[in-house]
Amino acid sequence: MPKASAKKSPQINPVRLLVAKREGRTHTADEIRGLIDGFVTGQVADYQMSAWLMAALLNGMTDKETVALTEAMLHSGDVLRLKSVKPRKVDKHSTGGVGDKISICLAPLVAACGVAVPMISGRGLGHTGGTLDKLEAIPGYDVSLDEKTFERVVRTVGTAMIGQTSRLAPADKRIYALRDVTGTVESIPLIVASILSKKLAEGIDGLVLDVKVGRGAFMKDLKSGRNLARALVRVGKGAGKQVTALLTDMESPIGLTIGNANETREALEVLHNAGPDDTVDLTLELGAEMLMIGRVAKTKKQALAKLQAARADGSALETFAKMVKAQGGDTRVVFDPSLLPRAKQRVAVPAATSGYVASIDSMELGLVGVALGAGRTRADQAVDHAVGIELPQSIGAKVSKGDPLAFIDVHKKAAATPHVKRVQAAFKLTRTQPKSKSRILERLTK
Amino acid sequence: MPKASAKKSPQINPVRLLVAKREGRTHTADEIRGLIDGFVTGQVADYQMSAWLMAALLNGMTDKETVALTEAMLHSGDVLRLKSVKPRKVDKHSTGGVGDKISICLAPLVAACGVAVPMISGRGLGHTGGTLDKLEAIPGYDVSLDEKTFERVVRTVGTAMIGQTSRLAPADKRIYALRDVTGTVESIPLIVASILSKKLAEGIDGLVLDVKVGRGAFMKDLKSGRNLARALVRVGKGAGKQVTALLTDMESPIGLTIGNANETREALEVLHNAGPDDTVDLTLELGAEMLMIGRVAKTKKQALAKLQAARADGSALETFAKMVKAQGGDTRVVFDPSLLPRAKQRVAVPAATSGYVASIDSMELGLVGVALGAGRTRADQAVDHAVGIELPQSIGAKVSKGDPLAFIDVHKKAAATPHVKRVQAAFKLTRTQPKSKSRILERLTK
Repeated sequence: MPKASAKKSPQINPVRLLVAKREGRTHTADEIRGLIDGFVTGQVADYQMSAWLMAALLNGMTDKETVALTEAMLHSGDVLRLKSVKPRKVDKHSTGGVGDKISICLAPLVAACGVAVPMISGRGLGHTGGTLDKLEAIPGYDVSLDEKTFERVVRTVGTAMIGQTSRLAPADKRIYALRDVTGTVESIPLIVASILSKKLAEGIDGLVLDVKVGRGAFMKDLKSGRNLARALVRVGKGAGKQVTALLTDMESPIGLTIGNANETREALEVLHNAGPDDTVDLTLELGAEMLMIGRVAKTKKQALAKLQAARADGSALETFAKMVKAQGGDTRVVFDPSLLPRAKQRVAVPAATSGYVASIDSMELGLVGVALGAGRTRADQAVDHAVGIELPQSIGAKVSKGDPLAFIDVHKKAAATPHVKRVQAAFKLTRTQPKSKSRILERLTK
Repeated sequence: MPKASAKKSPQINPVRLLVAKREGRTHTADEIRGLIDGFVTGQVADYQMSAWLMAALLNGMTDKETVALTEAMLHSGDVLRLKSVKPRKVDKHSTGGVGDKISICLAPLVAACGVAVPMISGRGLGHTGGTLDKLEAIPGYDVSLDEKTFERVVRTVGTAMIGQTSRLAPADKRIYALRDVTGTVESIPLIVASILSKKLAEGIDGLVLDVKVGRGAFMKDLKSGRNLARALVRVGKGAGKQVTALLTDMESPIGLTIGNANETREALEVLHNAGPDDTVDLTLELGAEMLMIGRVAKTKKQALAKLQAARADGSALETFAKMVKAQGGDTRVVFDPSLLPRAKQRVAVPAATSGYVASIDSMELGLVGVALGAGRTRADQAVDHAVGIELPQSIGAKVSKGDPLAFIDVHKKAAATPHVKRVQAAFKLTRTQPKSKSRILERLTK
């Protein structure tokens, strides 16, 4: 990719650009770069950017414009090169769900297979959790490495997992903050540019996207999920990257845990050759795509074999332990996940009737998680790593009336009381056993 | 109209309103009032208002919403009552043109016929002139009376002509400033609410709108002018006022003068029973509508007779003189308009060929006026009252090659030189005499 940031910013007239977008005309790449550069330097005011965002949301953007927007946002800050990292560099991005701890087991697994995974993640907001919050359940784990240390850990361990810095894609951070308060979040081109500008700033060669669909996801139905996935793939390719997207089911929570330490524990179980089937399956499917993009496997079959081997022989767990150590964390929890924090009290949510677990409302459980303190409703809130929800069984399991559907982990039992009925109502029980379904709905490469 | 400002402001969630307007849903009157009140008090940020303006421009607003917006903006500040003024109070608003000095002769003429005219006007910007700048060509004339003095002058003289104060419709002032820099000027509902909120703050019973159409106007064609005029009439009525709109031709400049003192002189000539036919005609047509709304005439014929009488017997001139005196101006210029300032040098623009004057590009002459210093391109610029353009003849006149098409009034001849060719090119001459046309294109009462 050309280092656009080295070029002089194109001079633009913000009002003319606003009128053009308002009238449904397309911008040139230079105009978009001028707009974003102007916004970062203060020549384009907040109120102009927000009006432009609304016009862009309502009148749309072409893929070419979205590529230009992605690159302008990408080059608004540092772009990592990771020159010292020799393997191909591939990352995964999930559009966010409930119980989504996949990154934590996926990154070391893929790294153990010889693909570098320089992963910059986010925090939870609303009903969706964030990888950083989950990693911080590991005592001492530092998610805020500087760029040099990040590169060194990726080079020596094969993966590092950190948080967004203010130096990477700062335009995205400011634009997202504006979108959040101006009703301009729900725009596919703006979502695509936001996701890709941050991910491309990692200096990756390719990206696997996990586009979640269903009630616990941002995209509620397959059609809108597919639109987003396709746009991500097209724009990612337009920006010169190898990109694959999986559309995956986000109706019920992933795996059996919700909450930060709970989810990290489940991810570690996967590396310990255990863990719930759907968590393992999703990890392997996404990992296979990363290995193919990383050119260490030619076919999915080869890729899955490598991943299974790295999981079975403990090398993925070893990689994770090295990363935790390099990032200041307590490696004892890696080898004994039961050392992770867990709130002292466990309150069972009983089944009101007997039957098969047919569906579990992930949005509801996500929101209960937030209410327990595992998540946040405002970006400046702290989270409690020790609280959460654990499910004794998954979709398809048979339960008798009174059996536990879920356990709520809290510091004091009274904290669980207001949520018992809500968690109970999130489970739908049926008389006949539902068919088991894969979480993978579609695979898109163009 | 209910005094909405006395009510408690409805609490609104700005992001929800933004999403609703983005999705094309309509707001309730309370929601709109909450939005405007929130903007004035700072609870709704500039960047939220500008995104809302863009959404409103693109997705439109119903008449009911536009009435609510008008009333919310109106009640964002003082609303004059003018209780001590007994006659019905009627004003005229023009959407802006070139050579539009009509207000200056119209207000005293209508007032002399027994209708009160509490007129709050604006300044020139871009190619269009402003009544305040023209009035200030009269030495000493004060356009910034306080509300009490304004009411007293309207009561005792029948009319007063002042500028917008910061206490009247302050929301409009702030919203217009935002629209100007966010590409959201060209929205009929927003234009309507802006015009009507300011005019209704005058405490009037009715309003006559002069919606200009043509190259010297904001609305370039009849269709868009008609859309604006209809919306103004509908929303004005929705806000409880009697409203009539005339669509008038703004292809060529009005009358024979452009520039501040030049135009005031021409308006005074009308009151002295002279003046160009089109200026006189436009004044009488608009005046007749005001007299009918003011209920001092039942028919247009009656109204025209009254206006002609007030012009012929000098009572309109006398009214103007009283107003000038009450507002601190030098009344000598009223009785001897040649005392108004005029730049010393007069540069003739010769006809390049012989023929009949078929059209005069009002936009071009308006822009030359600005370039000479008679107008401004930024709101904070001062204007020169003494410079301008005067035409020796109007559309339809026969000229021979070398005859003057126009005179440019400047302090030094060199200042006119760069504009001679441009003014010459603004005149289209034809071999056959064009038919004379009225400036009145349509009359709308609903």
